[in-house]
Amino acid sequence: MSVEVVEGTGPLVAALPFTEGEYARRLAALRGEMTAAGLDAFVAFGPENINYLTGHDTPAYQYLQASIVTHDGAPVTVLRSIDASNTLLRSWSRRAVIYADHDDPVQTVISSLRELIPPPARIGAEDRAFFVTPRRYAELAAGLAAAGYTLVAAQLVEPLRLVKSAEEIAVIRAAGRITERAMQAAMHCTAEGTSENDIAAAVWAALVSNGGEFPGLPPFIVSGPRSSLGHATWSGRRFEVGDAVNFEIPGVVARYVAPLFRTGSIGDPSPEMLAIEAACLSSLDLVIDAMRPGVRLDEIHRLNVANFARHGFELAHRTGYSVGVNYAPDWGEGDLLSIQAGETRELAEGMVFHLVPGIYLPRRFGLIISETVIVTKDGAEPVMEVPREVFVG
Amino acid sequence: MSVEVVEGTGPLVAALPFTEGEYARRLAALRGEMTAAGLDAFVAFGPENINYLTGHDTPAYQYLQASIVTHDGAPVTVLRSIDASNTLLRSWSRRAVIYADHDDPVQTVISSLRELIPPPARIGAEDRAFFVTPRRYAELAAGLAAAGYTLVAAQLVEPLRLVKSAEEIAVIRAAGRITERAMQAAMHCTAEGTSENDIAAAVWAALVSNGGEFPGLPPFIVSGPRSSLGHATWSGRRFEVGDAVNFEIPGVVARYVAPLFRTGSIGDPSPEMLAIEAACLSSLDLVIDAMRPGVRLDEIHRLNVANFARHGFELAHRTGYSVGVNYAPDWGEGDLLSIQAGETRELAEGMVFHLVPGIYLPRRFGLIISETVIVTKDGAEPVMEVPREVFVG
Repeated sequence: MSVEVVEGTGPLVAALPFTEGEYARRLAALRGEMTAAGLDAFVAFGPENINYLTGHDTPAYQYLQASIVTHDGAPVTVLRSIDASNTLLRSWSRRAVIYADHDDPVQTVISSLRELIPPPARIGAEDRAFFVTPRRYAELAAGLAAAGYTLVAAQLVEPLRLVKSAEEIAVIRAAGRITERAMQAAMHCTAEGTSENDIAAAVWAALVSNGGEFPGLPPFIVSGPRSSLGHATWSGRRFEVGDAVNFEIPGVVARYVAPLFRTGSIGDPSPEMLAIEAACLSSLDLVIDAMRPGVRLDEIHRLNVANFARHGFELAHRTGYSVGVNYAPDWGEGDLLSIQAGETRELAEGMVFHLVPGIYLPRRFGLIISETVIVTKDGAEPVMEVPREVFVG
Repeated sequence: MSVEVVEGTGPLVAALPFTEGEYARRLAALRGEMTAAGLDAFVAFGPENINYLTGHDTPAYQYLQASIVTHDGAPVTVLRSIDASNTLLRSWSRRAVIYADHDDPVQTVISSLRELIPPPARIGAEDRAFFVTPRRYAELAAGLAAAGYTLVAAQLVEPLRLVKSAEEIAVIRAAGRITERAMQAAMHCTAEGTSENDIAAAVWAALVSNGGEFPGLPPFIVSGPRSSLGHATWSGRRFEVGDAVNFEIPGVVARYVAPLFRTGSIGDPSPEMLAIEAACLSSLDLVIDAMRPGVRLDEIHRLNVANFARHGFELAHRTGYSVGVNYAPDWGEGDLLSIQAGETRELAEGMVFHLVPGIYLPRRFGLIISETVIVTKDGAEPVMEVPREVFVG
């Protein structure tokens, strides 16, 4: 099977969100990692990694996507025919190998490698990626071995994504402006008799009208007993007096997300809600105050756990997670780095986290008050300005 | 490591979308397949399969989910703590093994199997699923072997999902009503000067206000040269006279989707657009007329390809794909069954397909006119009633 590397020509159909220098920086950093690992080529399957390296962007990656990086030239992305336009006409790399709907994409990846870097060679490939299946990875391994390659399982792009550049922080701030407006729209509509779907409609309209892109997860809009469900969303329920209502909203710009979670109360909050609110607010203060380059993540998590314990609650989930490029089924980078038990890595300037202190009381309600924060030279700075409180609707 | 199977008790926080009999039918069918394959247990990782078997539903499956089915009792789903409420409080199966954010989910799956079915035993597990990574599958294989199990790679749920029951067809029809309203809202807003985001806001509001759930892919809303991109969506572009505008919209009920694609023209369509429209419309007529139980899928695809060739166009993508339960990154079941070259399986009553005849002319425009159709006893019946034409805005 022989393949052709197709290059996009002529003007792009839309401007790129980042400078040439930003993409060049990322590619050079990856090549540094490849050299350190003794790799002649690297294959990325994760849509976040592919977008980060090439600018290729689509929510539809049910057909295999694979970006191949060697030590020469722009990345080459193996793509289904109908989706290749997103690389040829609107990416930075603009190089693709195209397969038909009924072709075997793994064989196309192997043929593309033969075209770009003849064997013998050491090929790194992501084996912790979702969108290459175990069966396909096994087929890739067998095919590469038969062709005289050495396959090395590797995740080289994720560590690069953790620390954001000035350009990346700028789009996260822009995403935060969109989240703020959508959260304000949601809060404005909140009242007895409003439905979860009314809020979801207002949130989607505000996100999209203000320039928000498709998020990796939908907005989470739940109320009453449904607010005690983790990661459930709108289902038509109407708000009643005494309800907690939970809104978690993802503004997205250039694929970067700035999420925010607020809990409201229909009528005055109960004493129990106020007690959890107090724990959340003091945890946010403690955690943000403690965040600075060099601090270990498990130490920050311990502060949060201890604070909830002082308030009489047992914290049951991580303190926060890294955010950046986002594609379904996540808007976070928690798989890259989370503020949680056992995480001994340290904060660095330019990291961005969504901090999510809160409590779920099964069948009763959930309450979280969050912030997305940027780690600065000597502290941490919230991206958004929405009052930190249980709002009353 | 010992684990506990937790059972949900008390009333559900929301009614299930299907009858007890529907879920029991699915589980019995899977057990029949397990018996035929000589399996003592089966592990599903795909969110569509998990939802189909258990009713568990969340868009957030970045943490490993695994449903374990043995020959006794309801399925047991291994879940991250924060998400377990979706099984305990709002599923059919209501049995979970829960792991913490910092736990190893693969070890939890192995421990759960030891609890449910002691070794030696033959365990089937999906190796063509996205959301178990190649590395995790390898860890599972090693762990099961060490524990005295035999692992068999198997995909037993997908074939069951292809033929829809009366209850499933009813929710697909309900989803179609929602898609119709959202498409009408989009067409109503279409005019010179309207932006892609204006349409996207109207579509989301219409989908959600009419009861639509989160879809596996966002609505695709593109215009002008961007309409030639496959699976791109809104980016703020404003419509100009002469533009093609493409709207592909997913109404979703009970996780079942009924998608519809329409192309419009800002001002009168060009002769070239009219020529492609004629090819699309005659292909839809030919294909729908040919569809009935027993017909091979590649034969239907050939009719479509030949019709486009007669009209002077080369069809570059499949004729259609199965639709049903949907989760990101797809709203279709094309991985289960597509109407395309080389597909020798036959149509059966109760299958549902999204037929997508059309042409993409890179950098210029794309044009597709689609229908979602149900295969009946002796033919095929469209789910929706939106005029089959290039609409003018």
